Amino acid sequence: MKLSIGDYVLLYHTMNKKWLIKLDEEKKMHTHLGIIDLSSLIGLEYGMTIDTTLHKKIYLIEPTIYDFIMKSQRNTQIVYPKDLGYIAIRCGIKNGSKVLEIGTGSAALTTFLASIVKPNGHIFSFDINPDFMKIAKKNLVKAKMEEYVTMTQQDIRQGFNLDDEFDAAIVDLGDPWTAVEVAYNALKGSGAFLAICPTMNQAEKTSVSLKNNHFTDIECIEILIRNIEAREGMTRPSMRMIGHTTYLIFARKIFPFNLNDNGESN
Amino acid sequence: MKLSIGDYVLLYHTMNKKWLIKLDEEKKMHTHLGIIDLSSLIGLEYGMTIDTTLHKKIYLIEPTIYDFIMKSQRNTQIVYPKDLGYIAIRCGIKNGSKVLEIGTGSAALTTFLASIVKPNGHIFSFDINPDFMKIAKKNLVKAKMEEYVTMTQQDIRQGFNLDDEFDAAIVDLGDPWTAVEVAYNALKGSGAFLAICPTMNQAEKTSVSLKNNHFTDIECIEILIRNIEAREGMTRPSMRMIGHTTYLIFARKIFPFNLNDNGESN
Amino acid sequence: MKLSIGDYVLLYHTMNKKWLIKLDEEKKMHTHLGIIDLSSLIGLEYGMTIDTTLHKKIYLIEPTIYDFIMKSQRNTQIVYPKDLGYIAIRCGIKNGSKVLEIGTGSAALTTFLASIVKPNGHIFSFDINPDFMKIAKKNLVKAKMEEYVTMTQQDIRQGFNLDDEFDAAIVDLGDPWTAVEVAYNALKGSGAFLAICPTMNQAEKTSVSLKNNHFTDIECIEILIRNIEAREGMTRPSMRMIGHTTYLIFARKIFPFNLNDNGESN
Amino acid sequence: MKLSIGDYVLLYHTMNKKWLIKLDEEKKMHTHLGIIDLSSLIGLEYGMTIDTTLHKKIYLIEPTIYDFIMKSQRNTQIVYPKDLGYIAIRCGIKNGSKVLEIGTGSAALTTFLASIVKPNGHIFSFDINPDFMKIAKKNLVKAKMEEYVTMTQQDIRQGFNLDDEFDAAIVDLGDPWTAVEVAYNALKGSGAFLAICPTMNQAEKTSVSLKNNHFTDIECIEILIRNIEAREGMTRPSMRMIGHTTYLIFARKIFPFNLNDNGESN
Repeated sequence: MKLSIGDYVLLYHTMNKKWLIKLDEEKKMHTHLGIIDLSSLIGLEYGMTIDTTLHKKIYLIEPTIYDFIMKSQRNTQIVYPKDLGYIAIRCGIKNGSKVLEIGTGSAALTTFLASIVKPNGHIFSFDINPDFMKIAKKNLVKAKMEEYVTMTQQDIRQGFNLDDEFDAAIVDLGDPWTAVEVAYNALKGSGAFLAICPTMNQAEKTSVSLKNNHFTDIECIEILIRNIEAREGMTRPSMRMIGHTTYLIFARKIFPFNLNDNGESN
Repeated sequence: MKLSIGDYVLLYHTMNKKWLIKLDEEKKMHTHLGIIDLSSLIGLEYGMTIDTTLHKKIYLIEPTIYDFIMKSQRNTQIVYPKDLGYIAIRCGIKNGSKVLEIGTGSAALTTFLASIVKPNGHIFSFDINPDFMKIAKKNLVKAKMEEYVTMTQQDIRQGFNLDDEFDAAIVDLGDPWTAVEVAYNALKGSGAFLAICPTMNQAEKTSVSLKNNHFTDIECIEILIRNIEAREGMTRPSMRMIGHTTYLIFARKIFPFNLNDNGESN
Repeated sequence: MKLSIGDYVLLYHTMNKKWLIKLDEEKKMHTHLGIIDLSSLIGLEYGMTIDTTLHKKIYLIEPTIYDFIMKSQRNTQIVYPKDLGYIAIRCGIKNGSKVLEIGTGSAALTTFLASIVKPNGHIFSFDINPDFMKIAKKNLVKAKMEEYVTMTQQDIRQGFNLDDEFDAAIVDLGDPWTAVEVAYNALKGSGAFLAICPTMNQAEKTSVSLKNNHFTDIECIEILIRNIEAREGMTRPSMRMIGHTTYLIFARKIFPFNLNDNGESN
Repeated sequence: MKLSIGDYVLLYHTMNKKWLIKLDEEKKMHTHLGIIDLSSLIGLEYGMTIDTTLHKKIYLIEPTIYDFIMKSQRNTQIVYPKDLGYIAIRCGIKNGSKVLEIGTGSAALTTFLASIVKPNGHIFSFDINPDFMKIAKKNLVKAKMEEYVTMTQQDIRQGFNLDDEFDAAIVDLGDPWTAVEVAYNALKGSGAFLAICPTMNQAEKTSVSLKNNHFTDIECIEILIRNIEAREGMTRPSMRMIGHTTYLIFARKIFPFNLNDNGESN
């Protein structure tokens, strides 16, 4: 595939020197590593290498959802890739899933979920902050995920009119326990709940609310990712690491216990 | 959706007491919690609760890929969900991706990747052990992923005839560095490489081989997952945790450096 | 040094097969590895090896405080070595220190602190449970630390008559925040406070209490220890690890802020 | 105790704004928080608070070994407190111990060990680098530990003339496995060995060497310390943490296996 105007490219020099850009006939990028003439990339391919004017190597990488998220515009704390992948698998989100998201934020999680459920599934995402929604929209468009997402500016805890049942409900609010009830009502039987809880207090309150609202399989975890410097004869973990992003709390919806042994309602 | 013969159900009592079963008209399950008559579940729905003969609650949960993997038959070490999700996002594997897997094992990773790439993508998985392949096949069928996977019993390092280019190449062998070259040849430009490396020696050798074989963005990480017991007034991490499963080493394919500043080959 | 009656020996076979015993003329130890005749050890030295009747090697190791603690009798959760060493250094406990301990428990921490402050320092330890104190006494005697510890069965939060000032105050109670005030009164200026807090709720409440009671340099941490299987060509972390023991919260005592720039009281 | 000329004080404002100073009649400290007139501290006590000229609170804290180490002059990587405390307890180092240290470095570990073994024990520390030894000396004098340490500029692996037996041997070299033999010869029976190994390769080679040199109870670990922000209603781990300092490898010396069941040499 030859690169052409409008294509996104990850210009990769090193782990800490990389840029996600959109190809443009005119633009020249000025960097500490020298100038990169973006028009010179047209007709090249992903996997090729160019030199800057200062003779530094730049690799042309096809950006993935991971890159779009890590390089997205943000004015909120985003959910990180170490957490995103686990959320998808633990909630059983897959091609065709219908997902309710309460709290769009900068849409990092929305973007990722959309990339999983497409082309047959859909994300319905709610936020009350119009500024967040503007940025979220931009990030979704950039990652080409906007057609799989319906965004609504509304406090869904006040009630909602979605008549279908959701496979999963994802809550990313400061007070996630206040959304447990609306999530319950939106979910299908045994549907998956997840809340993003940066603090232990949020995790604790959400856990209590889940126990009081007919959820089961309630599990709270945190994920730590550690970089290893794998070098010949001197392999060791990196000196610095991210110590914490968020706790994740998962659960599954159960109908009220009004069934007897033979499966009939009382 | 009413449950019927042949449907899979996760019978959930607690985190450590759960069974993944296939509905059957005749079968009665004998457990420490009492007898569960599987025929009594027919016509019920996911999310409902039944009682065992000992009056213990059993929740009827729709199994996800996570449940199929955690309850899969194994005779090899499997890749765990904490690693699976990150692999998918870090390699950019998504609906439509074409993935080469070298080392099928018990097909935990294969099953998960198939669930992501379907319906438009495909997994080509190679192993040399016929016993592993038999179990892998069973696990894929159970999770309804077999149509998205082509399994071949062959040492792909001896050469292969796949004429297309792969979006990602996943290596799960005891000596992953020996598969770096074949993975390179199979990948498209900037395609993603991943190796599963339980020991630091494997990670180190694979890292060296990647550096010598035109790969960039080489990153080695490990993921730790920690359970939190979120309970009112006494929240704390669990006393026991999994200390290690595997290191993961990622990279992207680059063509040999034969391009000058204006992007033409020398 | 030749071993004689009454000496303690750690009989070491492997990490998980070891016994801390007291030499005895008559006793024969019956183990899965064969019989060990303790009288045969008399006159041997630490560092020597004996065989059991089943020809298994047993190494004669001089027990350290670490071994006495790990093999102590317990009816409470003990403080683990990973935490003990850090407590000593972070609180500045050293030869000659005078330490107040509120909550003796099984005396693991008491034993260790005594081994550090001796021969010139002393531990004053309080508990209200006579059963704990009986076991604590036994453990201190076994480790030969009883002369450096004064144990009192009393709720010290009701008031106390120790006229000196303490270098450090260590709290190991279920409700550590209730002991912040008495610890403050017992400490010298800039003296060190530590509380053992298994849950985050305890840590949070204790932190709040410290802020309200003229403490500074308040720091809450947790320590994780991970075993590495360092073996030629296959080095990796162990599959299982301890996920949590306790949070530790440290602080230093400050007098009320009633000094002006030139150091005089208002 | 009234502060006087020559006393050390930790001037503490916050976790990240603190200075370890020596009292001086003339000196004024210029800081971002305002000027601190050190002469004004004379006659005050630890635990009191002063104001800078910009009305910022400064707490007068009595420095501990922890503070001396964290504020020591360094031109090498030091051993951190999380590791120091565990080393002492795991090696059974206590008041009266005689310790051999191979590799003095900046003397962080030396300072700490001296503070534990004093007044009856002693540290014999060897290094080949005269520049390191100069800094090490300064740090020992500052912490008032010089009388408990004998420093020698010599490659002890070439042979040594210490006629006594050591309770513990501590190795902090780039190639710790080369010092296993000399450590073995210096130790008493069942004496404790420890090597500081920043990389997995060092740990692996040292482990192999220990197995080949009559050591037992070989254990390799790493310690992680994590800060918790314990604040009312919003408690969570800190976002950043130290990902790695070093692996620690412990062992105990065993005499060659030339003893039969009844304890006599063959």
